[in-house]
Amino acid sequence: MSDRTTTPATLDDHLDATRDARLASLHEFLRIPSISALPEHAADARRAADWLADALGTAGVENVEVTETSGHPVVYGDWLHADGAPTVIVYGHYDVQPVDPLDEWTSPPFEPVVDGDRLLARGAADDKGQIHAHVVAAAALLATRGRFPINVKYVFEGDEESSSVPLEGWLTANQHRLAADAAIISDTGFFDGNIPAITVGLRGLMYAQIDVQLSPVDLHSGSYGGAVNNPAIALAQIIAALKGPDGRIRIPGFYDDVLELTEVERAAMADLPFDEEAYRAAVGVSALVGEAGYTTLERKATRPTLDVNGIWGGFQGEGSKTIIPAKAHAKVSTRLVARQDPHDVFEKLRDFVLEIAPPGVEVSVHLLGTGRPTVTPIDHPITRAAARGLEAAFGRAPVYRREGGSIPVAATFESVLGLPVVLEGFTQPHERAHAPNEWLDLGNYEKAIRAIVATFDEIAALDRTGGDRRSTDG
Amino acid sequence: MSDRTTTPATLDDHLDATRDARLASLHEFLRIPSISALPEHAADARRAADWLADALGTAGVENVEVTETSGHPVVYGDWLHADGAPTVIVYGHYDVQPVDPLDEWTSPPFEPVVDGDRLLARGAADDKGQIHAHVVAAAALLATRGRFPINVKYVFEGDEESSSVPLEGWLTANQHRLAADAAIISDTGFFDGNIPAITVGLRGLMYAQIDVQLSPVDLHSGSYGGAVNNPAIALAQIIAALKGPDGRIRIPGFYDDVLELTEVERAAMADLPFDEEAYRAAVGVSALVGEAGYTTLERKATRPTLDVNGIWGGFQGEGSKTIIPAKAHAKVSTRLVARQDPHDVFEKLRDFVLEIAPPGVEVSVHLLGTGRPTVTPIDHPITRAAARGLEAAFGRAPVYRREGGSIPVAATFESVLGLPVVLEGFTQPHERAHAPNEWLDLGNYEKAIRAIVATFDEIAALDRTGGDRRSTDG
Repeated sequence: MSDRTTTPATLDDHLDATRDARLASLHEFLRIPSISALPEHAADARRAADWLADALGTAGVENVEVTETSGHPVVYGDWLHADGAPTVIVYGHYDVQPVDPLDEWTSPPFEPVVDGDRLLARGAADDKGQIHAHVVAAAALLATRGRFPINVKYVFEGDEESSSVPLEGWLTANQHRLAADAAIISDTGFFDGNIPAITVGLRGLMYAQIDVQLSPVDLHSGSYGGAVNNPAIALAQIIAALKGPDGRIRIPGFYDDVLELTEVERAAMADLPFDEEAYRAAVGVSALVGEAGYTTLERKATRPTLDVNGIWGGFQGEGSKTIIPAKAHAKVSTRLVARQDPHDVFEKLRDFVLEIAPPGVEVSVHLLGTGRPTVTPIDHPITRAAARGLEAAFGRAPVYRREGGSIPVAATFESVLGLPVVLEGFTQPHERAHAPNEWLDLGNYEKAIRAIVATFDEIAALDRTGGDRRSTDG
Repeated sequence: MSDRTTTPATLDDHLDATRDARLASLHEFLRIPSISALPEHAADARRAADWLADALGTAGVENVEVTETSGHPVVYGDWLHADGAPTVIVYGHYDVQPVDPLDEWTSPPFEPVVDGDRLLARGAADDKGQIHAHVVAAAALLATRGRFPINVKYVFEGDEESSSVPLEGWLTANQHRLAADAAIISDTGFFDGNIPAITVGLRGLMYAQIDVQLSPVDLHSGSYGGAVNNPAIALAQIIAALKGPDGRIRIPGFYDDVLELTEVERAAMADLPFDEEAYRAAVGVSALVGEAGYTTLERKATRPTLDVNGIWGGFQGEGSKTIIPAKAHAKVSTRLVARQDPHDVFEKLRDFVLEIAPPGVEVSVHLLGTGRPTVTPIDHPITRAAARGLEAAFGRAPVYRREGGSIPVAATFESVLGLPVVLEGFTQPHERAHAPNEWLDLGNYEKAIRAIVATFDEIAALDRTGGDRRSTDG
């Protein structure tokens, strides 16, 4: 069983024989509506954590526990019998985004549907499908070889979609048992055209809410219109002032700490195989629009930006209701790049909004979440091992990309645990994470399982070939 | 019973004896959730129409019918036995505004609650309480005198809160049986401080919706942020462009047809007893804000304005959801003054919005409702009769005011039926029409019943005293 030279066939045979069972298991996992942002789904988050812990235990992972945090539980498990081999933390999250607008789903978000190579469900890609591939890889390794080639510590959280703040506290409190050589985060995707990719840069996040209040109650727009301000118009004026028609963010000092791309980095991005028109068509927009002076690839991954994620106030029904809303609100977030600090950016946003607040309304701004931006080195041995693992499974060397999204915990692994982080994710680029009809490419999922095993093997090989493995646990 | 000299006491006695019964009846009427704008309440609108028809019939009004329109039914009834006396159309509406935000009501909107002199319920003031006072006045007249002093035709519609378009068609189709000398509209209120008032000007209305679409589905704000436009920001930019910081509407040509107030009119308004600070405090706003160069009273009743009545798009829940919304929407309406045409104003709005629409999003504008502005002459005999009727019941001569709201049918009575219109309404100025916790002042309601009878008597007296009654039915 542990003869490494015959293992690949054995592992493949095992995976071929267990395909139906693992799809049934993945469906079961996806059926749990573990939406972390909505308090009414707290019990579902716990159910998903329990389910995941059971799956890890059944796979043969040891010391499995569902452990408390200030938010939803963390699921921990390890396998630490590869004496002398590196230790890797594997990270993912079992929580999912909210599902609204529900009426745009072609099938209920928590009833998985297979359509050709696509598995449609909330969380299929982000991130349950990816952590399920890790659990399957663990089960396959232990079933066929009886062991892992390296030491592995699994850390699966339940608050990623609502900030990862509870995990940060948990990581700090549990540093003693999280000693490792590197962290593998599987929560990213491939490059356009479904080209395997390793993500070497992540944007940070500052997520805030702006509230504008006019009056205690809605006012009749006929009786009061003209005499009082309108909170939705005031909010529109504030939002319009945040970004210029040139796509530049107008919050004073916003760009102060931005680390500009080098000419070498810009040239490397320009060399990536990117078909702008195909991308535009796949996204389904009439035109790509962004900050003047930068390409689309630069804009979506290496430049900070500001978006309104939600806006509401007053009457939203059919027909007409003649009111001046009492209140209007907007969720406003910025994606940040290296060296911007989310708390500093929040303060600059808040100060500017309060400064430009129109008269006759009360304006307040509060912070909902932060994540620091990260950049990981392309030439780190762990990154190279992951690249070889991806190439072994997908038959093509990965490209190195920056990703516009944020994984707050990536910065935490670096700063709290002092670990190099490799972002090895497996989803198709247009899998609709966070949107209705999120889907997982089942081909990618199957190969991801093999890529995880191959990556572990490559990390084990690093040591034997004298790779400059960094160790914090001696 | 019909001896007029002994009637007042008899009528008062009758009203004193039937107070509990009419409050119970009013509660019953208010319990019907006849929200005209929401299709799911169509059956409730019909139920309210049937209830009202029953009440009119029980009062002794004749030829009562619930008659079809292109929208909700019109309730018609008449009493035409006052030979030689004037004929008056009495107008009101049995439909009500939607009730959201529901969580701001202190009690369920369709379960009336009496709190001191206040009766709390959706429609209590606008307009069920007022038409109920008319039904009670009819019943009291017929119970105590056996007759009306004039001929009366009741027209109660069910679409006022969603445009009155169906009624306009019905009035045109039923001109033959609507011959009259004047129309009394009871759908307005008193002047600040609860001073009896006759409304001599109404603003018109143009109500539209702006839709901004980015993409078929919400997009992940990390993956796509910076590369695509944001429909909520685009909408904010459009809205911010519609009105300047000076409160002037910036739609080209918007003010072209506005009939400016004369110096005499401005002086008369300045003479009205209006405590701006008390008004501000009663509305509950931190400051009164409006068009530069005009007073608050002028702004809220004699100047056109533009408001956002509702705005929505993207995530509205607790916490954070990191999306770029697929779509964003706003309900935008303008209040119009004499000589502005709502269709012309809509075209100007639409053209301007499409002209300034930002790139990368699809913008569309559609019309949801219109109402023409009206101004009625202060010195018309019917206006003077109503003023005497109000003074008899409320012990104080009314002031003449312009009202910022719109009653689309007022213009239709003038243009289609050729009738002078008197706007004799009875609600307290801060009764929260269209807002949560709408209430009716029960003192005003009781006196309104007496004022209606007194107004009918004054109209009957007009003829005998040689008032210059205008007749269209010979």
